[in-house]
Amino acid sequence: MTEPTSDKTALVLFSGGQDSATCLAWALARYARVETIGFDYGQRHAIELDCRARLLDGFRAIDPAWAASFGDSHTLSIPTLSAISDTALTRDVEIAMGADGLPNTFVPGRNLIFLTFAAALAYRRGIADIVGGMCETDYSGYPDCRDDTIKALQSAISLGMARDVTLHTPLMWLDKAATWRLARDLGGNALVDLIREHSHTCYLGERGARHDWGYGCGECPACALRAKGWREYQARA
Amino acid sequence: MTEPTSDKTALVLFSGGQDSATCLAWALARYARVETIGFDYGQRHAIELDCRARLLDGFRAIDPAWAASFGDSHTLSIPTLSAISDTALTRDVEIAMGADGLPNTFVPGRNLIFLTFAAALAYRRGIADIVGGMCETDYSGYPDCRDDTIKALQSAISLGMARDVTLHTPLMWLDKAATWRLARDLGGNALVDLIREHSHTCYLGERGARHDWGYGCGECPACALRAKGWREYQARA
Repeated sequence: MTEPTSDKTALVLFSGGQDSATCLAWALARYARVETIGFDYGQRHAIELDCRARLLDGFRAIDPAWAASFGDSHTLSIPTLSAISDTALTRDVEIAMGADGLPNTFVPGRNLIFLTFAAALAYRRGIADIVGGMCETDYSGYPDCRDDTIKALQSAISLGMARDVTLHTPLMWLDKAATWRLARDLGGNALVDLIREHSHTCYLGERGARHDWGYGCGECPACALRAKGWREYQARA
Repeated sequence: MTEPTSDKTALVLFSGGQDSATCLAWALARYARVETIGFDYGQRHAIELDCRARLLDGFRAIDPAWAASFGDSHTLSIPTLSAISDTALTRDVEIAMGADGLPNTFVPGRNLIFLTFAAALAYRRGIADIVGGMCETDYSGYPDCRDDTIKALQSAISLGMARDVTLHTPLMWLDKAATWRLARDLGGNALVDLIREHSHTCYLGERGARHDWGYGCGECPACALRAKGWREYQARA
């Protein structure tokens, strides 16, 4: 494994999904100390949050240097978000495309809220580097995952807190197959296997059946994207 | 009073303070329909929220057209903000300047959070115009009130929600005396008297003694600023 290249601390948005688990490995390879933050906002897949502990244990087991780098693991509850968002992720309705071309899983501004809360916590802890798994390549119509959005928000946060904050998005231009390759490069097949087994992607919030790409319903857009990425990764491996 | 110049709906960030009450009048003069949003985040001056109802009643009494324009009044609870912010506004500590030149009342990114939640609610209600009382002239060291910050955030929100949102800040370049003059221009002395009597500014969250400029402790920075503005308004009136 690589030595950390920075003596700073990073705060990683860590939901327990494939993308954020890969971001966590990316940060562990670069920063002397890494803290994580997860959000509980009444979403159906609270199971994703349960996956965090198992993944963190797995990271510690893969590399003692990683184990030594872990700082606090934070969970912030944001009940406000579900209160104002009548969407498929927070209510028991079918996932579909809305008239505006966005999936009805879209919680308006969700990533803006997550990143701004993360920045507020980071401010209090003297952390200037925030890492998130936003990705434009497979962004499924979510405008708050786009690079333009993240860069505008970095400006707003840095100006609004009078402190330079960097929002790192190492997956921004990767597709899901490339994300698996990045995980392999960062932590070998042990990390790929860990993420495959214990990360959660399925919109339905079910562990579901075991597939070669992990657990999930196998039908929802998130499962379909994950399955496609795994197939492509395997084909090119 | 003026006729509304827009057939649109505006959402006004309405805390019950002098600035946001003036913004509410500004919006009522311009928009066919006006909704308000207030935030409860465990701050010491929850009394400010109590002032909202009395102010809204007062607005309705001043002008029947205003009464007809009022839409829903929303209150969002944001317990997350107080959970991560160890500051004088949310805890019983003395207000002072921190080593970074910011008052310890500063909740990092507070206005970013407020405006983004307001935008999420506005999105769900089909509202594109958001009005807030942020002011750079008397900004007391709060970087999230600065014009640069608000403009960067407008970009981030518009990109992140894939919808043009405008953050209106009619007080941005006014001092407190000019804010009183704006209230007078919008609603006459009846509005000035209403805001003076029922808006709340004091950091200590007390109604306190009655002064010529309203109620408050009379000692904290917010009371001092309000008193100074009132004196200047009276001197120039």
